[in-house]
Amino acid sequence: MKRAVVLLSGGMDSATVLYLAKDKGYKCFCLSFDYGQVHKRELKSASSIARAAGCLHKVVRFGLPWKGSSLLDKKIPIPQRAHQVSAKQSAGQIPSTYVPARNIIFLSFALSFAETLGAKDIFIGAHCHDYSGYPDCRPEFIRAFNLVAQKGTRSGAQKSPIRICSPLENKNKAQIVKLGKKLGVPFHLTWSCYKGEKVPCGRCDSCNFRAMGFRKAGFKDPLIKK
Amino acid sequence: MKRAVVLLSGGMDSATVLYLAKDKGYKCFCLSFDYGQVHKRELKSASSIARAAGCLHKVVRFGLPWKGSSLLDKKIPIPQRAHQVSAKQSAGQIPSTYVPARNIIFLSFALSFAETLGAKDIFIGAHCHDYSGYPDCRPEFIRAFNLVAQKGTRSGAQKSPIRICSPLENKNKAQIVKLGKKLGVPFHLTWSCYKGEKVPCGRCDSCNFRAMGFRKAGFKDPLIKK
Repeated sequence: MKRAVVLLSGGMDSATVLYLAKDKGYKCFCLSFDYGQVHKRELKSASSIARAAGCLHKVVRFGLPWKGSSLLDKKIPIPQRAHQVSAKQSAGQIPSTYVPARNIIFLSFALSFAETLGAKDIFIGAHCHDYSGYPDCRPEFIRAFNLVAQKGTRSGAQKSPIRICSPLENKNKAQIVKLGKKLGVPFHLTWSCYKGEKVPCGRCDSCNFRAMGFRKAGFKDPLIKK
Repeated sequence: MKRAVVLLSGGMDSATVLYLAKDKGYKCFCLSFDYGQVHKRELKSASSIARAAGCLHKVVRFGLPWKGSSLLDKKIPIPQRAHQVSAKQSAGQIPSTYVPARNIIFLSFALSFAETLGAKDIFIGAHCHDYSGYPDCRPEFIRAFNLVAQKGTRSGAQKSPIRICSPLENKNKAQIVKLGKKLGVPFHLTWSCYKGEKVPCGRCDSCNFRAMGFRKAGFKDPLIKK
């Protein structure tokens, strides 16, 4: 059975990617990160989703001895307006929730895990529609990282490189909700809100994108009670 | 004063790169990793070298929840024969000391640190002569990672990307010793041996390369007493 590493944040995108990879016949190994984010709510979600999917789940813990993001530093306010920007517009509009090089760090650990497992595919839920303007979600970044996987690993040097797969790359949030519904993603276990309170705040970028996705797809978000 | 992040392992190559960057007029911020390596001797050396150079030094700590290398797993023996291989030969001859995706992980953290500092250059002591056949020391890997820095970071999206500089890329160990001597590198503070004992073992790959470098350059290694 072919193996894959799936980056699982606990959000709806990575949960959908996990169920998609399972649907494609992969034995999935989930990977999450405890990196000093201001709340740990999403890690609990990641753990529940991996359990629901029947997959092994590893958590890498690291402390960044620097800040530079509102997701790492409680003193920086989390923006409350949804940034609907195109990839072209994104350069000047990167919000304070951007964590410097976060997806690069996550994919690097995923490469290490995949090499150790003998997995040939890494799945990531990055997409560039309805996104917050993060440079490390763009297709050109994924392509560049694939080149790193080819040139900088044992498997790459042995002409059997690990591939980074971002199957949501061209999907918007509504399309992701529809796909997830079809695949049986347990959306009630996922968590998107940047704030880690008991219920989603309903105001941050991430809540706004999620609400828009469910609304446009014509489904009710199971996390929203009223 | 322009800033640079310097990956500092505690070995002679990264120490030479630090002194080279200082010589080029950079204010250097050193970065090391406590990642579960079987000995911590090199971290003490990194700290001493950064202090001698008068530079700020940060250590990122992470635990890899997998092994896959003799530098992470005491049960795997460390090879005692020097692998003198060319980059072309390396594919089939990667030794057990290769840590899956290690330099990729290190450079990812360096990118995050550099973005936070506003540094535009990252220095790494990778080189492909007299090396152990590590794929993540090859020039083509450094080029691929430069593309990641352009495509996957805020500074890259804003057309002011961080550059990965590997000034030792085409130098062999003897040339590195000569350069270090010219720059005043405190070689007595550096540590190369894969085993973290009181004195270098003199038998592992890393000891062999170091000894060859000093011998060919015509200098005495200050770590070797007899």
